[in-house]
Amino acid sequence: MEIAIMGYGVVGSGVAEVIAMNSESIAEKSLQDSVSVKYILDLRDFPGDVNESKLVKDFNVIVNDPEVKVVVEAMGGLKPAFDFVSACLKAGKSVVTSNKELVATKGDVLLKLAEENNVNFMFEASVGGGIPVIRPMAQCLAANRIDEVAGILNGTTNFILTMMIYNSMSFEDALRLAQDNGYAEKDPTADIEGFDACRKICILASLAFGKHVFPENVYTEGITKITLEDVEYARSWGGVIKLLGRAKRVGDKISAMVSPAFVANASILSGVNDVFNSVFIRGNAVGDVAFYGRGAGKLATASAVVADVVDCARHLEKRKAFGWGDAVENYVVDHNEVETSFYIRAKGDKIFALKKAEEIFGDISILTRENAPEDEFAFVTPVAKEGELNEKLAKLEDVEILGKIRVENY
Amino acid sequence: MEIAIMGYGVVGSGVAEVIAMNSESIAEKSLQDSVSVKYILDLRDFPGDVNESKLVKDFNVIVNDPEVKVVVEAMGGLKPAFDFVSACLKAGKSVVTSNKELVATKGDVLLKLAEENNVNFMFEASVGGGIPVIRPMAQCLAANRIDEVAGILNGTTNFILTMMIYNSMSFEDALRLAQDNGYAEKDPTADIEGFDACRKICILASLAFGKHVFPENVYTEGITKITLEDVEYARSWGGVIKLLGRAKRVGDKISAMVSPAFVANASILSGVNDVFNSVFIRGNAVGDVAFYGRGAGKLATASAVVADVVDCARHLEKRKAFGWGDAVENYVVDHNEVETSFYIRAKGDKIFALKKAEEIFGDISILTRENAPEDEFAFVTPVAKEGELNEKLAKLEDVEILGKIRVENY
Repeated sequence: MEIAIMGYGVVGSGVAEVIAMNSESIAEKSLQDSVSVKYILDLRDFPGDVNESKLVKDFNVIVNDPEVKVVVEAMGGLKPAFDFVSACLKAGKSVVTSNKELVATKGDVLLKLAEENNVNFMFEASVGGGIPVIRPMAQCLAANRIDEVAGILNGTTNFILTMMIYNSMSFEDALRLAQDNGYAEKDPTADIEGFDACRKICILASLAFGKHVFPENVYTEGITKITLEDVEYARSWGGVIKLLGRAKRVGDKISAMVSPAFVANASILSGVNDVFNSVFIRGNAVGDVAFYGRGAGKLATASAVVADVVDCARHLEKRKAFGWGDAVENYVVDHNEVETSFYIRAKGDKIFALKKAEEIFGDISILTRENAPEDEFAFVTPVAKEGELNEKLAKLEDVEILGKIRVENY
Repeated sequence: MEIAIMGYGVVGSGVAEVIAMNSESIAEKSLQDSVSVKYILDLRDFPGDVNESKLVKDFNVIVNDPEVKVVVEAMGGLKPAFDFVSACLKAGKSVVTSNKELVATKGDVLLKLAEENNVNFMFEASVGGGIPVIRPMAQCLAANRIDEVAGILNGTTNFILTMMIYNSMSFEDALRLAQDNGYAEKDPTADIEGFDACRKICILASLAFGKHVFPENVYTEGITKITLEDVEYARSWGGVIKLLGRAKRVGDKISAMVSPAFVANASILSGVNDVFNSVFIRGNAVGDVAFYGRGAGKLATASAVVADVVDCARHLEKRKAFGWGDAVENYVVDHNEVETSFYIRAKGDKIFALKKAEEIFGDISILTRENAPEDEFAFVTPVAKEGELNEKLAKLEDVEILGKIRVENY
């Protein structure tokens, strides 16, 4: 079987490498005599590269070649990825992508195109890098109604938080270290502001609950405001701060959100450190399960792409029923309607303010840390709707709120 | 589609319950109008049971009914499970089982029978209860050469060890608590001696490396000799004691073993507590991935069985290529040939013995614990073949060995 790869960057070259590395077993598992890369689409030149002879600059060469049965999209972004993927599906080719932006914003359209053309559109690598997540969710949990999905979905921010928690590095220093290690990009916005995690929770929520969830409908908060003081209070509370994406059934609707959260030490998510990711699923029969591994990296991501290629090869004649339905208006409830509890760190007249906080919130739990300034205090509120908690918080007069982080019970 | 369930115990009744609970989505995901239980085989009576009308006592009713396409085997044990499953496969019915003993000792024969009769034999629930493990290994990691597989595969022993580690309970007290909670059977031998974990690592190793691995070829050691002193030394080393099953490529052969092991706190396996299980896979492309969840429990296990039923329903016409080959003579290397390092706890003339140990082993790392008796000492050896380590240990004269536990680096 012949395949084509669009985009010869980190993921695209990794896919070529993994196919070369494990060619025999990949062909065997694909139920094919062989699986080989016929074309690689990239506008750049790669003189001397091992795959130089396969490089093409014209997309039409790929879309018009009937020998190419499966196309790997590893270009990233929406333009021209969306047009190219659409054209491939229309031409009767299955498409495998690692492009989370494409799946999160255009997944509904592309899944429908795949269905209409009796081919497959797969994207295991778009969430959790090499960790098998999409397929276990779709297939292995077929027996469950999934009630919640959550996870540490971004390796860069998890690395930064790990350095803050275990090495007491400031956010800025940890970010710089992540950049020096190649874990964060020069412009780290998409990672540290939570946009990357947002795309991933959209994909997971769409699959778990059956309707497309768009990033613009998901409240998203990054980790830039987290301080070492917050990290210390989390420790005294008995946990760590993690950037979580999560989504949950709320009646006929869902809640979905990306934000930092306190996670208890007893949670399996608290032990997921460095650039590792973990996806957590709560099903009505299986209970809690989690998947863990490297969320990024050339060969890890490529390994997930190639697993999809194998699956496409095995289903050339017969489409896999897989995906989700159209988006629905007002499907994601406003985050102010979601129940949570807040960790609050503030500055003011400590004794007076904590007494006042108890009056307002009821049963708060007060946190302490060593060497805290006299006028600093922190507490965790009871569980209530976010909107209500914020209203109550506004009543806490004469204090300056320094930190506000959700507390989760995964 | 009609199915039958053989055995109406915990798992069998759970399967009926999950199918009733999520019937609509199960039918949809199965690409069937409906999925319903036609017969339940059990020799016992269940007067007043919701499924009373489906109960039959004669296996022939099931095997001779052409409407029954998929049979769930939840009887446990080898007799008559093996004969019944064989007959069903020969009758052209796919079989789903949660019976690890059956898969570990007869998997090769049954997989071949399934192939010959163009039906499926699936056993997701035989390892890790409800955690998707078998399918992610077989499918999602299709792009990888799996080099190692390891895991916390038995919830009962993990619960006991968790109580020893975090509540300082003795082994005997923790076992009693496990029995009181229904986590351990009256006769806990299969769990605490590692036999249950052994069957599971056999199944994982067979799938990962492609040849059937029999329990009798896998060195197996339980947790009955672990003491609170060992737990304390593990803590001072920076880790915890876990009962691990593991298997690893060693040239053309493999190593496979079940035994307690020191696991570092930094390992994801160290955070797997209580009755939870985790399976860890090391692939040549994906790196390290792990799957986590409840390893047992009625609905969790049933959820894995039903996922297999769904998969069988989707592949009624087309067999899934899945499984492994025959066993090979001397495929599992003797455990004395496997490289490891030992934690040793002993009694004797401490200063003299530790000096002697350094002479014998080279670079040992000495461990301490609070309130240790004057004549107790502990250390970790360098890495070497087990046989060599034991030979060296025999040279440590005039000491009584109180504890010997392998040290692993997952």
